[in-house]
Parts: sequence; C-alpha cells; structure tokens
Amino acid sequence: MSTICGPAERTVNILLFSPEERIAGSARIRLSGTRARHLRDVFGATPGKQLRAGEIGGDIGEATLESLDSDSVTLHFRAQHAPPAKRPLTVVLALPRPKMLRRMLRTVAETGVRDLHLVNARRVEKSYWQSGLLDTATLEQYLLSGLEQSIDSVLPALQVHRGFRPFAEDHLPALARGRRALLAHPAATRPCPADGDTETLLMIGPEGGFIDYEASLALRAGLLPVSLGSRILRAETALTALLGRFLVAPR
Amino acid sequence: MSTICGPAERTVNILLFSPEERIAGSARIRLSGTRARHLRDVFGATPGKQLRAGEIGGDIGEATLESLDSDSVTLHFRAQHAPPAKRPLTVVLALPRPKMLRRMLRTVAETGVRDLHLVNARRVEKSYWQSGLLDTATLEQYLLSGLEQSIDSVLPALQVHRGFRPFAEDHLPALARGRRALLAHPAATRPCPADGDTETLLMIGPEGGFIDYEASLALRAGLLPVSLGSRILRAETALTALLGRFLVAPR
Repeated sequence: MSTICGPAERTVNILLFSPEERIAGSARIRLSGTRARHLRDVFGATPGKQLRAGEIGGDIGEATLESLDSDSVTLHFRAQHAPPAKRPLTVVLALPRPKMLRRMLRTVAETGVRDLHLVNARRVEKSYWQSGLLDTATLEQYLLSGLEQSIDSVLPALQVHRGFRPFAEDHLPALARGRRALLAHPAATRPCPADGDTETLLMIGPEGGFIDYEASLALRAGLLPVSLGSRILRAETALTALLGRFLVAPR
Repeated sequence: MSTICGPAERTVNILLFSPEERIAGSARIRLSGTRARHLRDVFGATPGKQLRAGEIGGDIGEATLESLDSDSVTLHFRAQHAPPAKRPLTVVLALPRPKMLRRMLRTVAETGVRDLHLVNARRVEKSYWQSGLLDTATLEQYLLSGLEQSIDSVLPALQVHRGFRPFAEDHLPALARGRRALLAHPAATRPCPADGDTETLLMIGPEGGFIDYEASLALRAGLLPVSLGSRILRAETALTALLGRFLVAPR
C-alpha cells in the first residue's frame, strides 16, 4: 500500500479517521474537508483505490475508496489489527515555544510515547500560554501528524498543567512512584540510561533549563537527575535525543 | 554572559567569527552585515558589552565590543579555552529534502558529530541535488547554527558524494575499517547500541529507506544493521534519536 504523500513536511503513512466519521456506526466512513480534497487532488485517488487506514483510538486496517464528489469521499473500512504498542514512557515537558511545540508533539506521538504532560516553568514565556495553539483540537492535530508518520492510531494521553508548583507537589510524586523517574539536567553527572522496556518518566525543561527551585521540587518528587552530555542542546533536539535512548528494548 | 537571542528558531549562545574577520590578524575583529545589525538592533549591544565568542576553527573566549557604526561592529577578542571535544562519530546521511537538510545539519553540528558524509541514494529525489542549498557556504551556515547553539567553534568535516555506488565501494570500506560501523535499518533485529566513547560510523537512509541493493553494498563494506524499533520514523527524528544513543559516555 502506497504512502499517501501529505503537504510539505508531512508524510502520511496511514489515513486516520474519527469514530464520528463512520456513517451511522457502519464500516463506511465519509471524509470531508482537507483530507477529502487531498485524497482527490493530490493523491489522485479514484474508486477502488485501497489505502492503509485507522480509526483514532481503534484498530488499523484497509480502506477502499467507494465514491467521491467535490465535497467528500466515502470509503469502506476493514479493520485488520490492533495499533502498535506504546512505549512505556511518560514525558513531562515544559511548554516549548509555539513553533517547536508542533514538532515536539509530533515527535512524541511518532515515537510511541504513551503519556504526555505539558507543564509551565519559570523560563516558559507567558505568551506561549496565550497562544491560540493550545486548544485541544490543535494539540491533537500535532499529535495526529506523528501517528500518521509511524502508522499508529492511538493518541498519547495528554494533560496540560498551567502551574508548575501545584503540578510538582500534587501530581509529580504520584507519577514518579513505582517507575524509573528521570530529570534531564545538564549539570547531572549520571548518564541518561538507555533501554526500552522499563516503565519510565522523563522530565525535560524549557530552553534555558528549569530554575534551581523547580529542579529541587522535581528531585523532592523522587526524580533522578540524568545527563545527555555537556552540550547545551535545543529543547527539541534534547527531547528527540533522549527519546532515542528508550526506543529499543535491550537484547 | 548572556544568550544572544537569534532570529526565530535560532538561539545563539556564542558569537562565531572567521579568521578573515580579524583586523590584520590582530585580536580585534570587525563584523559587518547581518551579525553586526543583529548585535546592534536586536541584542542592543553597546561599547563595553562582553559576549562569548569563538573563532571558527579556533578557540573560544570573550569578545568586548569596542565600537559600532551603521555598517559594522568592532570587538576585541580574548581566547580563553579550546572548543569542546567532538564525539567520535562519523555520520553518513542520505541527502534529505532541503528543508530537513537545514535542521539535520544543524543537529549534526549541535550534537558534536566530528565527520559528516552526505550521500546520494535511490530514494533521494534528483531535485534535491539541484537545489541551490548545496553550495558550501549554505551548508556551512546550517552547521554554524548548530555550533552557535552548543557553544562550539569547529565545523564537522563535511564531504558530499553524488554517486552512491562509488561511495559505497570506494570509500565506505575504508571508513568502516577499524571502527564500529552501523547501518540504521528498520528490518534489523539487533538494537542500536548506546554508548558514547566508541569510535562509531552511523549510516542513515533517506525517507523510505535504502533500497536492498544499497543496503547490501553497505553490509559488504562491513556495516552491521541495527534497529531503533519497528516504527517508521521521519529521517530527521531517526537521526536525532540515533545520535542520542551516542551522546553520553558509559559510567
């Protein structure tokens, strides 16, 4: 089944649809808007065409295009298998600037992170929180573009915390309990571990890092400071490089 | 010393200058163009201001702003220490599409990769080679933006190979000899190792991967196929995630 080439920067290896796009709960789905136009105009799909497809939150399978008109596309979906397993990873991420947020959320979904917490921090600019990008639909679009890349149909569970201290004091200790919990910290001397089958929480600061007070609250919550070397990396690079250490199970 | 905020998407933690910008080989340097305007208009630098600076290919130290006019800025540079050590990494990368190339080269320099080979492959679109982005000055700019992030002054050694087979047959065996040589391959069963002090060659394919013939030439050159898990990652994500496995020396 061919890759569905997406807009610039976006590879779509699976056509994802929501349960509401099923026609009366049947195996037939109707898409409208961008995806319908894209299938018709860019991908050049015609009736009979088969595509890899997946229901958001559900199974992955094959969709056969039945009909298309100027507004919509109707397909028949046949579920074939469960989505790929998530990595046993919980990521706590200081809210990045809007442009990085899009790519970082895509990377989180693409690499199979199971749980994501976006948190405030002192060095997160206040304007990032006022950004129109933070509504749920937009955040989900970013995550979906990651799923479309790595052929997954299940969104990471996302929680947003606008106060650092309430998060660090009221939520983080429970999140850290019973799992390996790591704080990425440039000053740490312990190298970040690298193995993929241990239930892990990974906390990553904003550009410029967490301030000492924030780091101390994280340590008090049970996190262990770990390092990825002494270079100052962009938050985006640090996130992906850290995730790389947890993508593969040891032999 | 403060961060020199760069244009959108670009953090400049060190002001880099080339040997030719020294005035008659002295400790005084004169910058013109974008960097001069940026120092004046965005960073608001005035005489006496001290900045972290580094000579491209040379040492890192401190620059004191002496004077500035509408066209140029004159600074006095005092070398303080050698640049950070490179990682013992040679990356062989199938030429990515232009927009990814910029970010991937930045990441290569940012993470301290020592040697970079850009190579052709069957699934590299021919148009990427015609792109105006491939002149040396542009590629160096991409690499410099990575150095500016992670406070380094030495460019990775870059070689460009426009033919895959001549590269794989005539160069790759010598590059692989005497070091751990790895081919990132989705079908590999051996997990990619993760340690930072072994001399390593890491070869990464284009979007869609190397074709079987190319992979077989790489294996014949002595490379070992390794995996980063079963998900299809964007080339950019794969590069950074793979590099993450080599950024930290084991305890």
